[in-house]
Amino acid sequence: MAEVSSKPVPLLKDELNIVIPTIRNLDFLEMWRPFLQPYHLIIVQDGDPSKVIKVPEGFDYELYNRNDINRILGPKASCISFKDSACRCFGYLVSKKKYIYTIDDDCFVAKDPSGRDIDALEQHIKNLLSPSTPHFFNTLYDPYREGADFVRGYPFSLREGVPTAVSHGLWLNIPDYDAPTQLVKPRERNTRYVDAVLTIPKGTLFPMCGMNLAFDRELIGPAMYFGLMGDGQPIGRYDDMWAGWCIKVISDHLDLGVKTGLPYIWHSKASNPFVNLKKEYKGIFWQEEIIPFFQKATLSKNATTVQKSYIELSDQVREKLGPIDPYFVKLADAMVTWIEAWDELNTPSEA
Amino acid sequence: MAEVSSKPVPLLKDELNIVIPTIRNLDFLEMWRPFLQPYHLIIVQDGDPSKVIKVPEGFDYELYNRNDINRILGPKASCISFKDSACRCFGYLVSKKKYIYTIDDDCFVAKDPSGRDIDALEQHIKNLLSPSTPHFFNTLYDPYREGADFVRGYPFSLREGVPTAVSHGLWLNIPDYDAPTQLVKPRERNTRYVDAVLTIPKGTLFPMCGMNLAFDRELIGPAMYFGLMGDGQPIGRYDDMWAGWCIKVISDHLDLGVKTGLPYIWHSKASNPFVNLKKEYKGIFWQEEIIPFFQKATLSKNATTVQKSYIELSDQVREKLGPIDPYFVKLADAMVTWIEAWDELNTPSEA
Repeated sequence: MAEVSSKPVPLLKDELNIVIPTIRNLDFLEMWRPFLQPYHLIIVQDGDPSKVIKVPEGFDYELYNRNDINRILGPKASCISFKDSACRCFGYLVSKKKYIYTIDDDCFVAKDPSGRDIDALEQHIKNLLSPSTPHFFNTLYDPYREGADFVRGYPFSLREGVPTAVSHGLWLNIPDYDAPTQLVKPRERNTRYVDAVLTIPKGTLFPMCGMNLAFDRELIGPAMYFGLMGDGQPIGRYDDMWAGWCIKVISDHLDLGVKTGLPYIWHSKASNPFVNLKKEYKGIFWQEEIIPFFQKATLSKNATTVQKSYIELSDQVREKLGPIDPYFVKLADAMVTWIEAWDELNTPSEA
Repeated sequence: MAEVSSKPVPLLKDELNIVIPTIRNLDFLEMWRPFLQPYHLIIVQDGDPSKVIKVPEGFDYELYNRNDINRILGPKASCISFKDSACRCFGYLVSKKKYIYTIDDDCFVAKDPSGRDIDALEQHIKNLLSPSTPHFFNTLYDPYREGADFVRGYPFSLREGVPTAVSHGLWLNIPDYDAPTQLVKPRERNTRYVDAVLTIPKGTLFPMCGMNLAFDRELIGPAMYFGLMGDGQPIGRYDDMWAGWCIKVISDHLDLGVKTGLPYIWHSKASNPFVNLKKEYKGIFWQEEIIPFFQKATLSKNATTVQKSYIELSDQVREKLGPIDPYFVKLADAMVTWIEAWDELNTPSEA
């Protein structure tokens, strides 16, 4: 059964980096100061490197612009997107910490139904430090939360769960809709606070949003590649989706867990739906083929590490998605480059 | 995208039966009167047929005791459990309505966080009348609820959803725990109101509880058999679990949806954990083999109806679970008898 500890949640100050793709909004860090100041920030500045991002006093951070990315990665910098928030994954690459929390600069602190400020990071840490249950659904949601447990009929052999690799948080106020839905429902706001965390079952894919996302870099980092988006690419706004499909297939293969639900952040403003439509429209029809591809994808027994799994997946992308558009061949190559860059900057795993 | 109607939820007065296994508690119907009185009740009286169940004035009902079951089904009555609430499935058999709501007599009206009485049936009807989304997970939960929709990255081809066969409701106060968990956590209460409905993804099994359950009899009725429990059987408290595994495998096969979450009822009292342990203990180790069996079970293309699917499943139960214990051979036979009884009392489907 679920042994729930009511110990305070550890801060993981020395084990966690916050990765932020550019900060266009100075209020952002001020608002998050009580929660984020204890951590080391990695800011990946998108676009024009000559622009200066002012980080308020008291924050411990490192900042990378495009020149830094090019200098550090050399020719391998081609795998990092330009003029797109997908560039944030460079921060995952250079981090040396076990955990990453990534958040967008239009995400503010949300309030829970009792009116209290939500410490999003604390909830992500809770999610990451407790196991996941991908093999059987628990109807009272996360059995490891205080006041919950496994219900009658839950096999005892599965109650240990599996390590949690990813914690996907949600958004109050502006929901993460695609351009067509934004256009049709411009006034819809998410006001429903759902007090739940749950494991996405094994074999099920989900649309992973990068706005409010935490993960265990050691368990799944090399698969958290945000693809080729933005400048020079035929598509945008699919960076996090791409990573989400890849991490889910690989987590399922390696018996790791992916949780979604709490914590909420307050998503302050909707991006322009017309601009979004232009970025998304190819993705909207490509995903009709990409998702079935990922649903059917299986990895071999040789894929014993995230890196090996990711390289196998890149081969399948080249072969199966390449015929849709030459973009996918370029993407498959970039996936390989990403792993090379990862292993260059990180001690390769021993397996 | 999800077109949500804000029309009032239809009562379905002429299309829904309430099935209740015995009523030991006279307060039960009084408490539910505002919500249940419009419906026709089917009460399946468990145990001694000479006992008289007093139904308060104003309710429209029919009542079956063991003598009635024996008279109506003849030798086929052997498939209906005795001295166990599993007998309730006789009510599903004799109903002529499209929808069933079944509820236990220790379930009272719960309150939502605003303090309002929850009309559980209204929420079940909402769940059953809106589609399910078993093929891809929507992170904002049921996309058909007011104020929600499909999020960015949800394939448009899947947004029509599939028909919903089952709506599984939850419980505040006493959670539905197995005997070992009851023994270890005698004081745990479920106080968390999770304001969500979600589709259990395709390929994922769940522990279905029969306390607060609604379903579409036309879509899934013949699979909603509660097995052989209670008097003369080596096991109890697995009636709803058994039905849950079967309906999920068959719903997945026939592309039907199963939802869980809202509505909540107030579960007033825990059953005796020592009695429960005696009933459950074989199930606790059997389920370690039964669940993998159901996880791997596949049905053939010939299984085009619920009945045909159920007969195929009964063959697999006999073959694969029979070796665990002779009980499963008896259960497989009872599954066949149940379908024969179903077809005798209901117009067989045309397919």
